[in-house]
Amino acid sequence: MDPKSTAETVVKHLEDAWNAADGPAFAEPFASDADFVNVRGELHSGRDAIAAGHQQIFDTIYAGSTLRYSVGSARELDDGVILAHIPATLNVPSGPLAGEINALASIVLVRDGGEHRIAAFHNTAVAGA
Amino acid sequence: MDPKSTAETVVKHLEDAWNAADGPAFAEPFASDADFVNVRGELHSGRDAIAAGHQQIFDTIYAGSTLRYSVGSARELDDGVILAHIPATLNVPSGPLAGEINALASIVLVRDGGEHRIAAFHNTAVAGA
Repeated sequence: MDPKSTAETVVKHLEDAWNAADGPAFAEPFASDADFVNVRGELHSGRDAIAAGHQQIFDTIYAGSTLRYSVGSARELDDGVILAHIPATLNVPSGPLAGEINALASIVLVRDGGEHRIAAFHNTAVAGA
Repeated sequence: MDPKSTAETVVKHLEDAWNAADGPAFAEPFASDADFVNVRGELHSGRDAIAAGHQQIFDTIYAGSTLRYSVGSARELDDGVILAHIPATLNVPSGPLAGEINALASIVLVRDGGEHRIAAFHNTAVAGA
């Protein structure tokens, strides 16, 4: 499987889990020791922390939101290690962050047995978008 | 050399180049095909684009600024591939961004011959800091 298809499979899982507001499902494609930096510059380490952090935002500021991811680019950095850039568009129906939010994430996928898992996810809100 | 020491060597080079306002020197530790996502969520690909983009901000919004990086954590994702988290504190003396700005970057280092180069750099401003 090429890097872009591999990234698309992973990202589709994230998107579906986000849109189901399911924190543990969102965290499933991550490695158990994965690192996640969110748009506020906060680092969460470990799949459990990533699940809990996402469940928290799904239940509050991003309740009812709809996320659409794409894979902008993807390449192999080393054998089995993939870097991909993931543009995201989030629509939040209500609350302090209501409206459309755009972000760009970098993800690093590492091979784990027969599949790739996310070892690192780093997200940034797109300024002026 | 352990992952943290390797990251510290690279990051010290970045810090010195920033504080000398030298875009090409800042870009030196990057791989020629490196990807850089800045705090505005903009992707710059390639060492030349990273050099030019930094020279532009050194000459304008960040003129006279002082940067301090540290290495918060560093680990090997795969043989020769290092992920490190880099907290930064930037002091800008004047202009629209005057003051102290905090950020957190993730960097991915890949072995290239006898040294490690930055394959991916992703930066996020720390909210409320």
